[in-house]
Amino acid sequence: MVPHLLTALDGPIDELEQRVLDSTPAIERWFRLEWMEHTPPFYSSVDIRNAGFKLAPVDTNLFPGGWNNLTPEMLPLAVQSAMAAIEKICPEAKNLLVIPENDTRSTFYLSNLAQLKRIFHMAGLNVRIGSVNPDLKEPTTVDVPGGGTVLLEPVIRSKRRLGLKDFDPCTILLNNDLSAGAPGILEDLNEQYLLPPLHAGWSVRRKSRHFKSYEEVSKRFGKLLGVDPWLINPMFNHCGEVNLAKGEGMECLTTNVDALLGKIRKKYKEYGINEKPFVVVKSDDGSYGMGFKTVRDVKDLDALGQNWRQRVERKETPAVNDVIIQEGVLTNERMNDAVAEPVVYLMDRYVVGGFYRVHADRGTDQNLNAPGAQYVPLAFSESTRLPQPGEKPGASAPNRFYMYGVIGRLAMLAASYELEATDPDAEVYD
Amino acid sequence: MVPHLLTALDGPIDELEQRVLDSTPAIERWFRLEWMEHTPPFYSSVDIRNAGFKLAPVDTNLFPGGWNNLTPEMLPLAVQSAMAAIEKICPEAKNLLVIPENDTRSTFYLSNLAQLKRIFHMAGLNVRIGSVNPDLKEPTTVDVPGGGTVLLEPVIRSKRRLGLKDFDPCTILLNNDLSAGAPGILEDLNEQYLLPPLHAGWSVRRKSRHFKSYEEVSKRFGKLLGVDPWLINPMFNHCGEVNLAKGEGMECLTTNVDALLGKIRKKYKEYGINEKPFVVVKSDDGSYGMGFKTVRDVKDLDALGQNWRQRVERKETPAVNDVIIQEGVLTNERMNDAVAEPVVYLMDRYVVGGFYRVHADRGTDQNLNAPGAQYVPLAFSESTRLPQPGEKPGASAPNRFYMYGVIGRLAMLAASYELEATDPDAEVYD
Repeated sequence: MVPHLLTALDGPIDELEQRVLDSTPAIERWFRLEWMEHTPPFYSSVDIRNAGFKLAPVDTNLFPGGWNNLTPEMLPLAVQSAMAAIEKICPEAKNLLVIPENDTRSTFYLSNLAQLKRIFHMAGLNVRIGSVNPDLKEPTTVDVPGGGTVLLEPVIRSKRRLGLKDFDPCTILLNNDLSAGAPGILEDLNEQYLLPPLHAGWSVRRKSRHFKSYEEVSKRFGKLLGVDPWLINPMFNHCGEVNLAKGEGMECLTTNVDALLGKIRKKYKEYGINEKPFVVVKSDDGSYGMGFKTVRDVKDLDALGQNWRQRVERKETPAVNDVIIQEGVLTNERMNDAVAEPVVYLMDRYVVGGFYRVHADRGTDQNLNAPGAQYVPLAFSESTRLPQPGEKPGASAPNRFYMYGVIGRLAMLAASYELEATDPDAEVYD
Repeated sequence: MVPHLLTALDGPIDELEQRVLDSTPAIERWFRLEWMEHTPPFYSSVDIRNAGFKLAPVDTNLFPGGWNNLTPEMLPLAVQSAMAAIEKICPEAKNLLVIPENDTRSTFYLSNLAQLKRIFHMAGLNVRIGSVNPDLKEPTTVDVPGGGTVLLEPVIRSKRRLGLKDFDPCTILLNNDLSAGAPGILEDLNEQYLLPPLHAGWSVRRKSRHFKSYEEVSKRFGKLLGVDPWLINPMFNHCGEVNLAKGEGMECLTTNVDALLGKIRKKYKEYGINEKPFVVVKSDDGSYGMGFKTVRDVKDLDALGQNWRQRVERKETPAVNDVIIQEGVLTNERMNDAVAEPVVYLMDRYVVGGFYRVHADRGTDQNLNAPGAQYVPLAFSESTRLPQPGEKPGASAPNRFYMYGVIGRLAMLAASYELEATDPDAEVYD
């Protein structure tokens, strides 16, 4: 059932793969020690790009949707991980309240909710779904594609706790990325576990902070393996408060795009890579407001600026944007003729599965997370963390997938550092 | 790839299955709370018999071999569980020493060692295999069927620690059931973790003690579900020190066999079961010395006694035996025409997989763990703990397997109670 993948099974990333395989016990021990010091995010998904010559995470989601794209074979791993996660947080828990996105019109998203409910039910919890959308006034049953229903209920807030009618949960699981800011109804829930915490929401998170943490993680990991961290780390620069309408910040953007393109060019030269460097310009706060732009030359910034200004005029994006400029990582993965990128799903400290995001109309240097994307489950669970030591590097899908699981966990570790750094209650424990 | 199973997919055990399914969150929470108070055995395997009208464990192995019978699909679950187990015991561990059975001539057993090594390597440990067999003087490489080799090395004992040449493990994993008694070389290793502990060996364990604990567990579980514990509990009696040569203990045997047959008959009548009750007479200490005898009537004991005396004369079994008389549980599982029984594998608190033990030449009331048995892996990992709530009871393999996983975990919990009760160091922590 593994789809045909053009580059998943071969490619010049063999040396890194070999190092990763040879170092399996050291890598697993390293993670084990890290998790003694740091708390993994409750769950996460990591978009990975494999350029053939480098392999890097490009986005780490702390409120992953898309659980419905995991295959039935992956579910036992997810359930086992959910059991481990719950046991640490609230072992006596009976009830789990899942808070979905406010917009639940997408049938894919409803399937995701049904899958999350299934996973946590199997892990031993009574699961109900409570919306914080003020428009939802009454319990509403909605059909899920492929059969079954999901019951959405309006949450009820008491002074200290959040629940549903006749339902008082120990733990509240957010599946809502809070990009519009954390609603007041979720604040000051000091008696209940709210996971992930509010500061994991996109109203607080910054991509640049995440990738700063990831840079630190990749340096230490590179040292462990004796490899150049650039092979797994996308470089980036950051421009705070770019206001195109007023022309403010354009100089920062130009300087940083130029500097980053220069750094990438130097690395490409060092490794003899015959590709044209590019960077990706996007909102630092994870919003889609300013879009996701591929830039190959500072000259491209004029067009970008013009397009951006039009969007500001149409009020599609705020006038002021926090901007991250990230090294573009090509994806050389292809499924049939469509460009593909692996997405790794994690629960607690464990890789539980993944799939390929495939887009027929996009190029190898473009964002695939766009309308028209398709999701092709891969039999990750059969193989994720089970490299075949005897195999030639690049020749074994399990080995390649193990490497993806390692990169996914590095990004998750970076998210853990990031959440520690931004924890508003951190001083309490100091 | 699931083999054809005559009764795995239907059968009159539907009501129990329905209760188990309806109670999934309560069951999982109950286990979660139990594991807060009790330590699960490091690993275990449980033989289960499904009579159609009752479902019960008949043997709980704390040094499971046969890991090679798990399918590749089950390995990620085993690896994840191994990670969880190691993390609790010795998170900084680099090295794991596996101590195999002294007799490693069986190629099946070598495959089992290779599989254990694979699982713990993937979990992040350097794994080496050190034999306590005094006949092994030098490192010896042996071929494993299907490719690969296993290196057996003689252990080296220092005053306080056990290891190999240039290999000092934090944790020592016993895959040797110590039925001949714990060798002195394994004693007083107070600086290292020896798992399972010495008192889990068959020189200390008694089946009657295990099933006493299991009876307690099944009563509490029966109460949780509102079902008669007999539906999951094999009744038993116990005769200590039966010496057939001297005719001592025969009366105890006769009385207890008769009493147990009477109790079973009563239960069969209560449930309208049209089967002939039988009991199984076996050594209480897990040795195969006195064999495993099916007894349908006290009159059968004469033949048993005669056969036994002959074996004592031939020195195949000691003259004195501790004897357990256990309610015989039919197995109504069949694969093609051969009688089959499920075996569930557990690591730490998790069900990681299982298979069917199949024996073409044995009856539904006989021990299948005998020469000629075959092992048919089942896709447990796809489904073990993933019941399909919508399905009619008995109609879904995943649901049936979930129930097996629950029974396996009840037996593991009983083993945990048992090990606590027999822990020679227990008073230290009181």
